[in-house]
Amino acid sequence: MQADTNTTTNANANAMRPSHEGAVTRALAGFVGALRWSDIPPDVRHEAKRSLVNYFAVALAGAHDPTIEKAVGVYGRFRANERATIVGRNERMDMLNAAALNAMSANVFDFDDTHIPTIIHPTAPIAAALFALAECRPMTGEALLLAFVAGVEVACRIGNAVSPEHYQRGWHITSTCCVFGAAAAVAHALGLDATRTAWALGHASGQAGGLVETLGTMSKSVSVGNAARNGLLSALLADEGLAGPDAPLEGARGFLKVVCTQPDTSRITEGLGREWALLSNTYKPYPCGVVLNPVIDACLDLRRDARWTLDDIESVELLGHPLLRERTDRPGVRTGRESQVSAQHAVAVTLARGKAGLAEFSDAAVAEPALRAFGSRLRFIDDPSWPVEAAQVTLALRSGERIAHRVLAARGSLAAPLADVELVDKLRQLAAFGGSGVAPQPVADLLWKLDTAPDAAAPMRAAHAAR
Amino acid sequence: MQADTNTTTNANANAMRPSHEGAVTRALAGFVGALRWSDIPPDVRHEAKRSLVNYFAVALAGAHDPTIEKAVGVYGRFRANERATIVGRNERMDMLNAAALNAMSANVFDFDDTHIPTIIHPTAPIAAALFALAECRPMTGEALLLAFVAGVEVACRIGNAVSPEHYQRGWHITSTCCVFGAAAAVAHALGLDATRTAWALGHASGQAGGLVETLGTMSKSVSVGNAARNGLLSALLADEGLAGPDAPLEGARGFLKVVCTQPDTSRITEGLGREWALLSNTYKPYPCGVVLNPVIDACLDLRRDARWTLDDIESVELLGHPLLRERTDRPGVRTGRESQVSAQHAVAVTLARGKAGLAEFSDAAVAEPALRAFGSRLRFIDDPSWPVEAAQVTLALRSGERIAHRVLAARGSLAAPLADVELVDKLRQLAAFGGSGVAPQPVADLLWKLDTAPDAAAPMRAAHAAR
Repeated sequence: MQADTNTTTNANANAMRPSHEGAVTRALAGFVGALRWSDIPPDVRHEAKRSLVNYFAVALAGAHDPTIEKAVGVYGRFRANERATIVGRNERMDMLNAAALNAMSANVFDFDDTHIPTIIHPTAPIAAALFALAECRPMTGEALLLAFVAGVEVACRIGNAVSPEHYQRGWHITSTCCVFGAAAAVAHALGLDATRTAWALGHASGQAGGLVETLGTMSKSVSVGNAARNGLLSALLADEGLAGPDAPLEGARGFLKVVCTQPDTSRITEGLGREWALLSNTYKPYPCGVVLNPVIDACLDLRRDARWTLDDIESVELLGHPLLRERTDRPGVRTGRESQVSAQHAVAVTLARGKAGLAEFSDAAVAEPALRAFGSRLRFIDDPSWPVEAAQVTLALRSGERIAHRVLAARGSLAAPLADVELVDKLRQLAAFGGSGVAPQPVADLLWKLDTAPDAAAPMRAAHAAR
Repeated sequence: MQADTNTTTNANANAMRPSHEGAVTRALAGFVGALRWSDIPPDVRHEAKRSLVNYFAVALAGAHDPTIEKAVGVYGRFRANERATIVGRNERMDMLNAAALNAMSANVFDFDDTHIPTIIHPTAPIAAALFALAECRPMTGEALLLAFVAGVEVACRIGNAVSPEHYQRGWHITSTCCVFGAAAAVAHALGLDATRTAWALGHASGQAGGLVETLGTMSKSVSVGNAARNGLLSALLADEGLAGPDAPLEGARGFLKVVCTQPDTSRITEGLGREWALLSNTYKPYPCGVVLNPVIDACLDLRRDARWTLDDIESVELLGHPLLRERTDRPGVRTGRESQVSAQHAVAVTLARGKAGLAEFSDAAVAEPALRAFGSRLRFIDDPSWPVEAAQVTLALRSGERIAHRVLAARGSLAAPLADVELVDKLRQLAAFGGSGVAPQPVADLLWKLDTAPDAAAPMRAAHAAR
């Protein structure tokens, strides 16, 4: 059909646009515009701080990953000023570039937080956008935390409306939904009214992108960085008066219908202000696929009072949900990245070292002959009656002795969330792993009292690397 | 399912990835990497120049549109340097911001070119990216033209593979496909090999976005600008060594399958090097939905030797394909933008003024009482046997006389393309409309001999506004 975009659009849009169109976007934007600190329950306020402690941990870990080094090399050529910190590095950049690079480094190891219902990693893009803004436009810690809560709510509610189809189809849901979250968060921080907040969501709708096909490659980080950068840009454009569509979410050709055949639009507004996405947010204790968490827990416990060495073990039985085997039965992996989803490597390295950090899932660890050889001694036993967050590990020793350990709720699951002290320990370990020289404790201390801090940017200054 | 992205991806990707995966992306990237000027037929070379003349015309027209003014206000805060020209303006910016803003202004009126099979407007994003690069990295005119041909080929072939479903679903195909085109064009201009060109396409795949829902609002321009900027960025990242996926196009979770349920992947590679997308590119004579072109042609011819005034006309009959009525029967429009798809306004203003330029489809023109009143005198007569590029306009005068004029192939259609002189005239008119003070003739002269120019950036310098 030889009609140009303009013709086609108006015709179709008019034909398909009901009079109430825009109600969902208006309701969500209105919620964001009106949200006050007094509306946020204490447990949600605290979860926001926990998400930020985990965020700085993973950002410090990724700061010098090869992907980030290359991205800094290119993005750095286009920095307009040096007002915003790159976590764990000594370069500074303008807020748009800093938002992109900090979101990338916080997500590069897939070790950041996970909103369980959607598998969205919400904090990397949303926190990166807000802290970059805070370094260039002073705001209180309370203002940043409130904007962060609003942004996570928007990203995860949009994710709920298109899940599970959206991710299964091949959309990297962290990137596609967090551009809205970052836009909403920055819109709140800028004090935009409901109309301009809706415009910001409209500009975000035209910038939503990111494909699962890119995961496992350096390319993944580009769309994660864009979610932060373009969400921030969307709010700045709305603040400037750049107008958007009425119904970027629920419209006939809006985000929800275009990226999902059967979106549940009610999930956007249902329970707004009563149910909080942050309460379904979790933090990984290990840099692995989460189905491995109970197995690693069990191996760490077995190792604690070990009267055996790896050589004494004849075989290891893993009893758990079939998904454990389906997702992690990978002997002979060749890279650290593959090892993050290999039960053979996870069991061997954890029993051998009594640790399961990024160093245990690196290319170097995978190359150890003893660990590679051990894989053949692993056996899976499926039991569909087990939940995925549970597993039993049984060691059969050459002596004939059998030692079993059962974990019913893996560390880091909603049933057994990491304690605050464990999050700080993760921050300490990942700061050391990242090698930035940034002292982790001051960052943690500033984050725990962020709600009373006059300057929200203080943790970023503490995360600046001298060299 | 409580699996994190990492687990899910690796599991699914491995399960679903055939061994030949990546063949389509490799073939397309290989074509781009190997393309030489001697491979380009003369008519394709000339069409590339015609597309660029039309590009500068529409960019000069849009340079001071309110959308562009606001975008310059925000993007300008983030300019790293002032090495690239903003067409028709006196600001200069870094290449990424210039690419975005020039693509926006060239497309803001939907008066840019149209690749008929896909409705893609290819030149705005692709030319904007290449000229921005050329101002910062010297290249010959031939090198830019060759990269432009490659980029248009990539964008339109990807568009062919997902059409018509992709656009109908709600994707703004100009934005979603031209990010690949800009990436491929810049990859060629940078001399990237096939592997890095494929990486650039991979980075583009994660940045493809843009919704039809945003059309008709300022928000549309954001994704069009991104197509240019992010395509350019994708190639720069690939040049830096940032690696991408093997099959960003045809992969199980690659672009084609994610944005289209039944992509025709063969359209990506079929006839590569033998069939050229630029030969299906067209240029609008009027800033209207293309179905109005034959009507406006007829009205201009009727007006030429008019022995009547608007008041002498009792009624006007429009005979044509039913689509003409369906798309353009819009009496009483209120904005210039609406008037671009209103037969009532188009007929009235063209018969009254004997012109059909941007000024005739402005808010001011729409406000004229005489034109508003005339709309009621219009009648449509459907005849499905007529092609959409044809129409007959019959004037019934109060004297009883009837004057009919029939147009079989509208100006600007593939059957009656605008002549080179008409494109230059469009450039002259739109340069005047844009009010930039830029002299159009030197720009046209430089473009017609671009293939022999030592410096591809010369037309950009000529398009820089003194004030």
